[in-house]
Amino acid sequence: MDLYEESLKLHEAHHGKLTVEPKVPCEDRHDLSVAYTPGVAKPCLAIHDNPEDSYKYTNRGNTVAVISDGTAVLGLGDIGPAAAMPVMEGKALLMKRFANIDAWPLVLDTKDPDEIVSIVKALAPSFGAINLEDISAPRCVEIERRLKAELNIPVFHDDQHGTAIVVLAALINCMRLKKTKPEDMKVVMSGTGAAGSSIIRMLYAYGFHRIYAFDIDGCLDPDKSENYNSLKKELLQYVNLDHQHYQNIGEALKGADIFVGVSAPRLVTREMIASMNEGCVVFPMANPEPEITYEEAKAGGAYIIGTGRSDYPNQVNNLLAFPGLFRGALDAKATKITEEMKIACSEGIASLIEEKDLRPDNIIVSAFDPRVVPTVAKAVADEAVRSGNYRH
Amino acid sequence: MDLYEESLKLHEAHHGKLTVEPKVPCEDRHDLSVAYTPGVAKPCLAIHDNPEDSYKYTNRGNTVAVISDGTAVLGLGDIGPAAAMPVMEGKALLMKRFANIDAWPLVLDTKDPDEIVSIVKALAPSFGAINLEDISAPRCVEIERRLKAELNIPVFHDDQHGTAIVVLAALINCMRLKKTKPEDMKVVMSGTGAAGSSIIRMLYAYGFHRIYAFDIDGCLDPDKSENYNSLKKELLQYVNLDHQHYQNIGEALKGADIFVGVSAPRLVTREMIASMNEGCVVFPMANPEPEITYEEAKAGGAYIIGTGRSDYPNQVNNLLAFPGLFRGALDAKATKITEEMKIACSEGIASLIEEKDLRPDNIIVSAFDPRVVPTVAKAVADEAVRSGNYRH
Repeated sequence: MDLYEESLKLHEAHHGKLTVEPKVPCEDRHDLSVAYTPGVAKPCLAIHDNPEDSYKYTNRGNTVAVISDGTAVLGLGDIGPAAAMPVMEGKALLMKRFANIDAWPLVLDTKDPDEIVSIVKALAPSFGAINLEDISAPRCVEIERRLKAELNIPVFHDDQHGTAIVVLAALINCMRLKKTKPEDMKVVMSGTGAAGSSIIRMLYAYGFHRIYAFDIDGCLDPDKSENYNSLKKELLQYVNLDHQHYQNIGEALKGADIFVGVSAPRLVTREMIASMNEGCVVFPMANPEPEITYEEAKAGGAYIIGTGRSDYPNQVNNLLAFPGLFRGALDAKATKITEEMKIACSEGIASLIEEKDLRPDNIIVSAFDPRVVPTVAKAVADEAVRSGNYRH
Repeated sequence: MDLYEESLKLHEAHHGKLTVEPKVPCEDRHDLSVAYTPGVAKPCLAIHDNPEDSYKYTNRGNTVAVISDGTAVLGLGDIGPAAAMPVMEGKALLMKRFANIDAWPLVLDTKDPDEIVSIVKALAPSFGAINLEDISAPRCVEIERRLKAELNIPVFHDDQHGTAIVVLAALINCMRLKKTKPEDMKVVMSGTGAAGSSIIRMLYAYGFHRIYAFDIDGCLDPDKSENYNSLKKELLQYVNLDHQHYQNIGEALKGADIFVGVSAPRLVTREMIASMNEGCVVFPMANPEPEITYEEAKAGGAYIIGTGRSDYPNQVNNLLAFPGLFRGALDAKATKITEEMKIACSEGIASLIEEKDLRPDNIIVSAFDPRVVPTVAKAVADEAVRSGNYRH
């Protein structure tokens, strides 16, 4: 039986993947009168007097809403809210399994960004943090930004930032292994959507200032920006600062040190890899089919290869980031997820491979490494406290 | 330690009352690839092809959203969404404990009925049913009606209908004990808000056609209806059909058979009870202080007394209704909660006391009676199927 059939049977057998369970006894009238009426009036009034007490007397401080409109689900596209639910339940399951977070999946029957923003804002008092999921670009960027600006709980769109955090973690370890610095690296990006644009911003913030980015229309070029949408214009702050006019990705890859792909299958050839600098780093992560296969990249002479797949070395898996990130944000009662918290998350992940264990096929740990969540959570919580972005 | 302090400590010790737990294994890469990507694409696509399959492959069919705007919480009033959460968590806890339903509490940071309606509509694909809770009258009536009309999943406002269902159940058993019929009974109601107006509608539907209802302005009177709001005008279909002009509740209680109070403390005296017909039924249920105490009602000669309290006989407890009602609605995949399903629920509750066990101090079973939920669930599910109000 293949994975897909096995998955269908699993979902049918259990009718989904989550259950809600009591944390307190509820066996007799006395239990009821303490957990519910009339006793419950007391914690209600305490929260009414001091709204921050919702973190003390309710489950809020351990909850995350996993919210999607079903417009960009896996590689399946706009399949609608009901059909997105198995993914959202899965995400909530991972939050529990990896970080002991009580996450609840919510799918929304609207695609209107204004309505999504107002719904999530209205729901905010119910949750400690918001994880946006599988919302199509560029709407997802606007929705996340507005919510971050208007809410005082963490809001995080994993499709944008989860991959970016782990890519940066992997690149940090590539630098350690190669003994180079970000400013010396020429980076070529393929894909400037939700994940791609977040990767670009994070790499730039970390010191990678020679980035060239391609989308379906070619190389982002400050001299051709008249017709760019606002998101694409914004990326010109970070890419192609020396106004190169690359005609295609092959041209850009000549003499490049790093390739990161979150775009489409088969855009990169073995020959292009061979034209990159010695010791080059290649992360072809298009899903389900990558920009270049592991084998071809290897044959082209790539020194370090990272993929999205678990059956090759160096899996760039966003499961390395979001459970610990939310755990740390909740533990610190963070009020937002800042760029610095995301970088702290990358550094935390990178730190789990010691110098002596760094190898081209070992630049990123497994998501099942039990040190990941506590390490990431501590890094994120420490940064929230350091920067004052927490409830205190 | 009193109940209130004990409740505060319980809530603080556990940080709320609910946890989300996995129903499926998630221990290794294989588990992940079946519960999450890539396998999960298969149930997603199955639901995309047939939206009804969300009941097959997700938890939807066992979930209820407990939704409040925090405007009418217990007897505390408009304490806001965050402060309402302990009650909503409690309600969800009871759904689990009594009916094995996965209920999730959601509090909304808006009081605008239009916005509440659009939020709940947008959330509908996430849940099998909606329980509205502690939303102030008359907004709650409008909100529930619009949602019932626009959604094809059950929507139920417990504050309106929960008490009404249990009052009718208790009155059915009073009729059995007294060997009388609804049409022979003169009923006096005090309170025409959320609960009161639902009680009036249900009693009328069951055959009680001599109902007189009082609110803060006195007796509802078809000859004085110019300034009534639409909800109050609507109640004139059911009450005071013979155009009585009672000046006060004492006047109406003379020769009455049944008093039901969901209004305010100390409106009814021992003398008024004494002026009712022999064998009269008195349900003073104002919370926390009733219209007349149990002791005074007894001294006035009431034959059957029901209260909202667990420390007196005949507790009219809406916990008798909502767990089984939702269990039955979910089991049948009901598309709505009809008047007939509510009456089936009342009859199911009433049926749990056999003829030989009916006594003035035993007209309603305890909510802890293990037969309640299965009996109510079956009655409700059977009625949903009989009337065709289910997914098939």
